[in-house]
Amino acid sequence: MDIATRVYNHQWKIDPIVRSLIDTDFYKLLMCQSVLRNHPTTQVTFSLINRTTEVPLARLIDEGELREQLDHVRTLSLTRGESTWMRGNTFYGKRQMFTPSFMEWFENLRLPPYHLDRVGDQYELTFEGAWPEVMLWEIPALAVLMELRSRATLRDMGRFELEVLYARAMTRVWDKALALRDLPGLKLADFGTRRRHSFLWQDWCVQAMVEGLGEAFVGTSNCLIAKNRDLEAIGTNAHELPMVYAALAKDDDALAAAPYQVLADWQEEHSGNLRIILPDTYGTEGFLANAPDWLAGWTGIRVDSGDLVEGAETAIRWWQERGEDPREKMVIFSDGLDVDEITRLHGLFADRVRVSFGWGTLLTNDFRGLAGDDLAPFSLVCKAVAAEGKSTVKLSDNPAKAMGPEDEVKRYKRVFGVGDQRVREVVV
Amino acid sequence: MDIATRVYNHQWKIDPIVRSLIDTDFYKLLMCQSVLRNHPTTQVTFSLINRTTEVPLARLIDEGELREQLDHVRTLSLTRGESTWMRGNTFYGKRQMFTPSFMEWFENLRLPPYHLDRVGDQYELTFEGAWPEVMLWEIPALAVLMELRSRATLRDMGRFELEVLYARAMTRVWDKALALRDLPGLKLADFGTRRRHSFLWQDWCVQAMVEGLGEAFVGTSNCLIAKNRDLEAIGTNAHELPMVYAALAKDDDALAAAPYQVLADWQEEHSGNLRIILPDTYGTEGFLANAPDWLAGWTGIRVDSGDLVEGAETAIRWWQERGEDPREKMVIFSDGLDVDEITRLHGLFADRVRVSFGWGTLLTNDFRGLAGDDLAPFSLVCKAVAAEGKSTVKLSDNPAKAMGPEDEVKRYKRVFGVGDQRVREVVV
Repeated sequence: MDIATRVYNHQWKIDPIVRSLIDTDFYKLLMCQSVLRNHPTTQVTFSLINRTTEVPLARLIDEGELREQLDHVRTLSLTRGESTWMRGNTFYGKRQMFTPSFMEWFENLRLPPYHLDRVGDQYELTFEGAWPEVMLWEIPALAVLMELRSRATLRDMGRFELEVLYARAMTRVWDKALALRDLPGLKLADFGTRRRHSFLWQDWCVQAMVEGLGEAFVGTSNCLIAKNRDLEAIGTNAHELPMVYAALAKDDDALAAAPYQVLADWQEEHSGNLRIILPDTYGTEGFLANAPDWLAGWTGIRVDSGDLVEGAETAIRWWQERGEDPREKMVIFSDGLDVDEITRLHGLFADRVRVSFGWGTLLTNDFRGLAGDDLAPFSLVCKAVAAEGKSTVKLSDNPAKAMGPEDEVKRYKRVFGVGDQRVREVVV
Repeated sequence: MDIATRVYNHQWKIDPIVRSLIDTDFYKLLMCQSVLRNHPTTQVTFSLINRTTEVPLARLIDEGELREQLDHVRTLSLTRGESTWMRGNTFYGKRQMFTPSFMEWFENLRLPPYHLDRVGDQYELTFEGAWPEVMLWEIPALAVLMELRSRATLRDMGRFELEVLYARAMTRVWDKALALRDLPGLKLADFGTRRRHSFLWQDWCVQAMVEGLGEAFVGTSNCLIAKNRDLEAIGTNAHELPMVYAALAKDDDALAAAPYQVLADWQEEHSGNLRIILPDTYGTEGFLANAPDWLAGWTGIRVDSGDLVEGAETAIRWWQERGEDPREKMVIFSDGLDVDEITRLHGLFADRVRVSFGWGTLLTNDFRGLAGDDLAPFSLVCKAVAAEGKSTVKLSDNPAKAMGPEDEVKRYKRVFGVGDQRVREVVV
């Protein structure tokens, strides 16, 4: 029987990295449904940006291999079983989270073309077209680049050297579980799809957390793994919504209103634990100060940049000012987390709010120091850079994560009343 | 095809620990051939002794399971492929190391009955009968006990907990290889069969050393692994020869001569690197002082107890006194070795003699601290305790390893001129 497997494997042209359209973050699908309803024809451009320029992706990764992987992603379509899972499952306790009309559209989707150029030691990889289609390239594009870079490093290693590499990485992940398992009332989810070491590795890490953390591990943002391992799919919404809404704004007043319009649209579709505010796109402080009262009624807030303690304290003060009880509110931390930071934040806030953690890169790609630094995670993103021909802007609570043309950044800062910000190193 | 494997596995009554008569140390087979030639009908008793009485084997290991494993060993006979390997292979550069008459005997061998009793928290496990048959129980009996104890500890662990346990152990073994790989001219062999964590684990450790140490790893004492992995089988002779020869001695003069008679018999069969003296059975110093001159012409010496540096220095002095050049002599260290000790001894002696290492328990069973101490190796031996009704005696260079009835120990000390000895902790 090994013969059959071996012969079957002979026939592979490539070992595909992304093998399913739902090997993506749950919130991409939620946002996609929202975008398809509210902005089905908006033209956008997504672009891959390697913030860690010291990692020379174009020297490490063969262009032909990269094209083969991206071409393979374009052959994918939703399988019957995947469709059944999305239609039949409950998400956040709700049936039919995805409407029949969205599902029909999704079942017929193939991802649109990509544009790939080599510029120096980096790749320029962009996607243009209708927002609901283009946006679904983000996660597979990142996963392909991340894993090809891993493979480039692993290629020259011996069999036992490889086994021990993974032994070390497994030990490290398990030690993290052991360090976290005794935090009372911990709630933690895997948010590590986009910068994972590889698909199989993410799948391993998630299963290790299921065994190691038990009830404290509430699920994964990866839909395929959630489906295969019978876990909760986790996620709400991301910066791309306010960024595109803002780029589409006709004038400064519309710009100032755009981030709230995003959430007004969102509120029409979602309730409960899906009503999570992501306030930092144009500065958390101003966003909350100018927010309409109905937003204070939402379930919680996601703190994704800047000083995480300050971000949570700002939210708590804001809820108190608006007459809400913070103890009933959820605070989800999701920026550069690892064991120490999770432990510290849990200690500071577990008694004051409902704390939860979206643990990303340092869960699914902590290979720091294991092959020198050739496998260390790096800061690769794939962002909406333009909508209907206008550049998007992100300010964030950390200027190191800001993006957009200089004059537009200046204008956004004025409109959103963002003053001086402290630069913080982007961990991953 | 997974179905067939699964269904095939359904049919196992047990998962056998020892699956081959050559899953044993090479020197047992060499000694067996010698014994079959010189003492084919000598009646001996071998007995299992747990020197680490804190490990309550009879509480950890179910008697029924132990019997099943031992019964399974008794069903084994030499396979055609194993016989072919023993007949056709070169060992230490020599063809037909095993004579046709020995091979014919071995092909027809089944291991003799065993006697098992529970005494308190320990098992009393003994084997009685003709020396060449009984002696082959030693390694399988130890391997069965060691691995059943491992299984008892592993039984309650989760799947990922298990995977991480082995990940940690693999990392540890690999780190040992990394620490040793740069020692110039290192020669090291696996001697870890008897106290291995499990067969599969020993097999993994050996393969990891092949990749990690390259030329420095010269082979394994385990014949089955040597055969399967196409490695050199390593080993010469052990204490059981002088112990039984000594027990058979009619008077004090014969006793004093017995250890040399062993080597005289050995010399008739073996040359070159198989002429290795094991001098410590009744004290190294006296053994060498009283040795006949022809012994100084042998290839080397194995230092297996006491202060290893002192043992090697004694040998070097002895060779010099007998007009031999120590730089042409081999010194094999084989007692309680681990990375630091190997590095230290290599540093002290590599320029002065041909150093070699027989690395045992801490290569194939270093699980110290990985499941508390429930998997830590312990000092289990299986020794010839009587021959033709007379107790055997071992003095060793470490009184903690001595054995035999008190009055006989006293007599041996007198005959071999052994004075005060320093007690050293038995590592494993």
